[in-house]
Amino acid sequence: MRRLVVTDVPRPDPAKVRRLEGYGTATVHEALGRTGSLGPDLRPIQQGMAVAGRAVTALCWPGDNLMIHAAVEQCGEGDVLVVAMAGPSTWGVFGDLFATALQHRGARAVVCDAAVRDTATLREMGFGAWSRHVSVQGSVKATAGNVNLPVVISGQVVEAGDVVVADDDGVVVVPRGRVDEALLGCEAREAKEAATRAAFLEGQLGLDRYGLRAVLADLGVSYRRWDELDRDAVRSDG
Amino acid sequence: MRRLVVTDVPRPDPAKVRRLEGYGTATVHEALGRTGSLGPDLRPIQQGMAVAGRAVTALCWPGDNLMIHAAVEQCGEGDVLVVAMAGPSTWGVFGDLFATALQHRGARAVVCDAAVRDTATLREMGFGAWSRHVSVQGSVKATAGNVNLPVVISGQVVEAGDVVVADDDGVVVVPRGRVDEALLGCEAREAKEAATRAAFLEGQLGLDRYGLRAVLADLGVSYRRWDELDRDAVRSDG
Amino acid sequence: MRRLVVTDVPRPDPAKVRRLEGYGTATVHEALGRTGSLGPDLRPIQQGMAVAGRAVTALCWPGDNLMIHAAVEQCGEGDVLVVAMAGPSTWGVFGDLFATALQHRGARAVVCDAAVRDTATLREMGFGAWSRHVSVQGSVKATAGNVNLPVVISGQVVEAGDVVVADDDGVVVVPRGRVDEALLGCEAREAKEAATRAAFLEGQLGLDRYGLRAVLADLGVSYRRWDELDRDAVRSDG
Amino acid sequence: MRRLVVTDVPRPDPAKVRRLEGYGTATVHEALGRTGSLGPDLRPIQQGMAVAGRAVTALCWPGDNLMIHAAVEQCGEGDVLVVAMAGPSTWGVFGDLFATALQHRGARAVVCDAAVRDTATLREMGFGAWSRHVSVQGSVKATAGNVNLPVVISGQVVEAGDVVVADDDGVVVVPRGRVDEALLGCEAREAKEAATRAAFLEGQLGLDRYGLRAVLADLGVSYRRWDELDRDAVRSDG
Amino acid sequence: MRRLVVTDVPRPDPAKVRRLEGYGTATVHEALGRTGSLGPDLRPIQQGMAVAGRAVTALCWPGDNLMIHAAVEQCGEGDVLVVAMAGPSTWGVFGDLFATALQHRGARAVVCDAAVRDTATLREMGFGAWSRHVSVQGSVKATAGNVNLPVVISGQVVEAGDVVVADDDGVVVVPRGRVDEALLGCEAREAKEAATRAAFLEGQLGLDRYGLRAVLADLGVSYRRWDELDRDAVRSDG
Amino acid sequence: MRRLVVTDVPRPDPAKVRRLEGYGTATVHEALGRTGSLGPDLRPIQQGMAVAGRAVTALCWPGDNLMIHAAVEQCGEGDVLVVAMAGPSTWGVFGDLFATALQHRGARAVVCDAAVRDTATLREMGFGAWSRHVSVQGSVKATAGNVNLPVVISGQVVEAGDVVVADDDGVVVVPRGRVDEALLGCEAREAKEAATRAAFLEGQLGLDRYGLRAVLADLGVSYRRWDELDRDAVRSDG
Repeated sequence: MRRLVVTDVPRPDPAKVRRLEGYGTATVHEALGRTGSLGPDLRPIQQGMAVAGRAVTALCWPGDNLMIHAAVEQCGEGDVLVVAMAGPSTWGVFGDLFATALQHRGARAVVCDAAVRDTATLREMGFGAWSRHVSVQGSVKATAGNVNLPVVISGQVVEAGDVVVADDDGVVVVPRGRVDEALLGCEAREAKEAATRAAFLEGQLGLDRYGLRAVLADLGVSYRRWDELDRDAVRSDG
Repeated sequence: MRRLVVTDVPRPDPAKVRRLEGYGTATVHEALGRTGSLGPDLRPIQQGMAVAGRAVTALCWPGDNLMIHAAVEQCGEGDVLVVAMAGPSTWGVFGDLFATALQHRGARAVVCDAAVRDTATLREMGFGAWSRHVSVQGSVKATAGNVNLPVVISGQVVEAGDVVVADDDGVVVVPRGRVDEALLGCEAREAKEAATRAAFLEGQLGLDRYGLRAVLADLGVSYRRWDELDRDAVRSDG
Repeated sequence: MRRLVVTDVPRPDPAKVRRLEGYGTATVHEALGRTGSLGPDLRPIQQGMAVAGRAVTALCWPGDNLMIHAAVEQCGEGDVLVVAMAGPSTWGVFGDLFATALQHRGARAVVCDAAVRDTATLREMGFGAWSRHVSVQGSVKATAGNVNLPVVISGQVVEAGDVVVADDDGVVVVPRGRVDEALLGCEAREAKEAATRAAFLEGQLGLDRYGLRAVLADLGVSYRRWDELDRDAVRSDG
Repeated sequence: MRRLVVTDVPRPDPAKVRRLEGYGTATVHEALGRTGSLGPDLRPIQQGMAVAGRAVTALCWPGDNLMIHAAVEQCGEGDVLVVAMAGPSTWGVFGDLFATALQHRGARAVVCDAAVRDTATLREMGFGAWSRHVSVQGSVKATAGNVNLPVVISGQVVEAGDVVVADDDGVVVVPRGRVDEALLGCEAREAKEAATRAAFLEGQLGLDRYGLRAVLADLGVSYRRWDELDRDAVRSDG
Repeated sequence: MRRLVVTDVPRPDPAKVRRLEGYGTATVHEALGRTGSLGPDLRPIQQGMAVAGRAVTALCWPGDNLMIHAAVEQCGEGDVLVVAMAGPSTWGVFGDLFATALQHRGARAVVCDAAVRDTATLREMGFGAWSRHVSVQGSVKATAGNVNLPVVISGQVVEAGDVVVADDDGVVVVPRGRVDEALLGCEAREAKEAATRAAFLEGQLGLDRYGLRAVLADLGVSYRRWDELDRDAVRSDG
Repeated sequence: MRRLVVTDVPRPDPAKVRRLEGYGTATVHEALGRTGSLGPDLRPIQQGMAVAGRAVTALCWPGDNLMIHAAVEQCGEGDVLVVAMAGPSTWGVFGDLFATALQHRGARAVVCDAAVRDTATLREMGFGAWSRHVSVQGSVKATAGNVNLPVVISGQVVEAGDVVVADDDGVVVVPRGRVDEALLGCEAREAKEAATRAAFLEGQLGLDRYGLRAVLADLGVSYRRWDELDRDAVRSDG
């Protein structure tokens, strides 16, 4: 594990970050060609909050939050702190004191691959938190790690300076070099979805809108009425 | 995997379905002799919603929602779409566009053995969702499956035309041939529980109400005062 | 498994219990030298409730709640029922009828190492519940166990007469012989945290407040500017 | 849970069962249209054993092996005992005494959705065992279940009289009505695989043998030389 | 976490330990009233080895093996080192160098609630290892813990001076105050099992030997012939 | 997901690869500063095999092995095929036919983040396999992915041209730019370990060899004799 704190990471254009926040994780993820998700196990501790911001990353030893202290200093206006662990851990490494320090610096949320605690207070403060666990189990400050080097969470690489987008559906990372591509994709997707939604509200089916009847036929899917079905032959496939 | 879409599945009596919805999952499950539960891992994305409806089933390939499109067409007034997966998957196969199309047709909820997304929007729409995961990870429409054939979720067989009951405690399936038996059982159980609740509110104990003191004695359970206990002999059994 | 019900377990001083409730799980856990947590998998079914009370313990066979009936009789004013399982189980062993009986006796909450059900009703009743699972799957009353002997949940020993503290962050156990030590520790910690919070609100960093810059230097952590970084050399460490 | 022991379940043709055993689980599973697998979590306790036999099913309460005693009586020459659990359990319900009784009756193996124990002895006896866990944790004989009614293991329905095939790769179930179809499919598949193996041994590629170059092209997959790759653009997709 | 190394832990009578080793884990576990198991997730890295010895315990921080060094000094002839973790961890804390030092002192095996590595070498050395994981991931020596204080593994308390019994089925702990009770129970159980085995080899059924036909009848279990079964009524209960 | 097959990936010096194979995963992992491990869940299907080779990577859709066919063509003498999945999957995507084709081309092993099957045959062939699961569940060839782009397995980035080292302890990846560093580190570590082993065989303790007595004292760890211990104060910390 490299023992390095990287400083002065470029911050993406705040206006673009705000637009990504507005689109939300599902749209951004699609706009990136279905990449960027930190997976279903990083859950929000609050409901109804959406956040996007520059990623400041920290890599910590399990049960040790020393490097979060180093990372706080690297955080500023609108940032999202991303805490990765050198190994799987269920322990709490982040609580309301860190949130106080971060909020003072303008940072808005934490994404934590271990546990957060003081969740009631975090909700009161309006400081966003997405984490793998909630746990009171406390940490030490004894082991080195790094700040703002690339980390991996749930198989997804996150680099300092990327844009983290988080809402009720989870967390998505936009590589800093793909922000414009993501925005273009979001715009296109929103337009397409709006049209689809309108069509669905008028009763059109996805089967027709996307030409899926032909796909089904090509794949050999046939139709049969319930009362013409040989019930003995349809035991579940598992 | 059979490649078949079954149509015209009989719909259970709406009045009976409504009554099952009123009883809720725990009562219905007991009324069926403690069967029918889809287990603890299918969780609601909302709180305080109770739904019952005819099951329309879809069996999808992991990461593929083609068959949901086929299933939407089979859904109508009051139905619950039940999405099973051919293998374990954490990916999102259901979101707000599907909910829009289903709500337009009168369907009320989805039960999904993979992930849903757009959860904030689903909650706003009042479209119920119970799922194993929440995840933005998107799907393709490339692989065949089936609609309205029996599926298995968490070890429980679900057949099209069964009644799905879902609330804060989870999801229970009533086989279409056992709806009347379930209703009778629910009625009986509610009466019994009301009497028990009243007795408990007056201070009666389950030990006495159910004759369990004799059961405990038969099983060799004895009583001892704390200050007469040999503390060295009571290390935890694990 | 010993077949014993222990009665007349001493109750800790209610005033002290109330103070522990006020401090909350994270503070109490720290005050105990970072011990006592029942881990991240025992989650509350409600949000915003904090409870502390004397532990009344029950050890049950998986899928069997006979011993909970015996434990209810041992519960009184302000108690918390702690249900441990002889083996891992996802089944529901606790619901609203038990809560009714317990609430009548003055007990306030249940901590359950299996599943609870009737969660909507429990929330309405204001009866607290922390559990590993939520599940409708019902239980029998057929197998012996014990009440008020030491149990283990998530690797933590809980003894009857200990104080259980539970809130949004989870559950912590204070051994009955360490209540005063815990209170002293809580007091000290709260004072220290208040000072830290004030300092953080004025912009001080943990790095400076805790003298961590020297620790980082000792551990060989160095600083480098982003634009001076050899990007090829910083592929993620995993 | 129905409380029933079903007797006199028809036994499939032993010659056909023996042929299925020879083909092995992977081939049989493919011959059934990729169905029938009990999944990756039922593992053999031995290496190098292949078994096929008529399924005799038992449904047990977690931690209770009463119904296995009832099932033993229903087992005979060449049978495979299939033990399902009413709920998830890690406890040992099967050991060398059961194996002794079963081997005496001509049965050959057990498939157990909980744990087996006495594994060293089972290996010495040459009695096959596939199970979800290995654990010494013992069981009681206190709770009713059933024998030879349909059960579900890992989402796969198993009915008494089906053929269970088990080897180093796991366990596959052939519905009794599909034995001939399975044999035909196995024969065809073996022939096809033999030809493919011969072709591969002469250097042919699957890409060419199965016409996959066109499939790749249709899906938009292109080729590029390593030294012509823009390395910055190929950060992992996660 | 207390920071203490306890020395001079009494060693149980070696002759009795040897006898426990001979009985094996399943018999010992039954002799203790079905207690003492460390559960199904602590697996041997070798097959066919049985070991019993005095427990020397170490409690380590995740990813840190400092306290194992302290524990080695406390190990002697015939001991089994038991490594517990302060929190869940998949990292390797034990390898062939530790085994070399321990073997030199006469210790025979390790039981590790995290991961071991150098497994090929450990097998060659004949040094037994039971662990939750196998992993190369290395550890630091930075954080305090304790040696020979009580630890909990898989919900089972292990105290220094207890007897650890381990074989292909897993690991069982005999509290040092219950060794004689365990031996008596083992003797009785072996005799009983030998008689049962003989009876089973002559064709007797457990149903008859244990009087279970009456139990089944009492529980309402009935018998029906396959060809008299209403197949529509026997859809799986799940 | 980028749809690209990268060809002509440089192969590391075979002599160096052979030396890495000789050192084994634990030593290589340490030589890389404790990085590179694919974690404890990728297990070998065989015992006693050690392999090192150039990584050829494939990224597949769950349940789909189309891209493995494309990857086979990119494999040659001494290579190790590394199969990553776009999402978690337990399905079999690799079996003996692939092994036949690969062995024909000189490739030696597969590392698979899903399941392999035909494990008995693979062992007979001497073709190495490390995988997350073993499962017969078969795959389709329908969805695009990529070959020889960076992939992530268990949070570790693997790039085509890296050296994969695998043995009984698991799998470690050496970035192609760090092969020399790894070899130097291995050499140093082996020398150091040999000296330590010799010292341990003569009775030296790690406590003394590594100067850990001072570390323990600094951390506040004290020593106490068993018979001087206040047993009431040492209830397990959990």
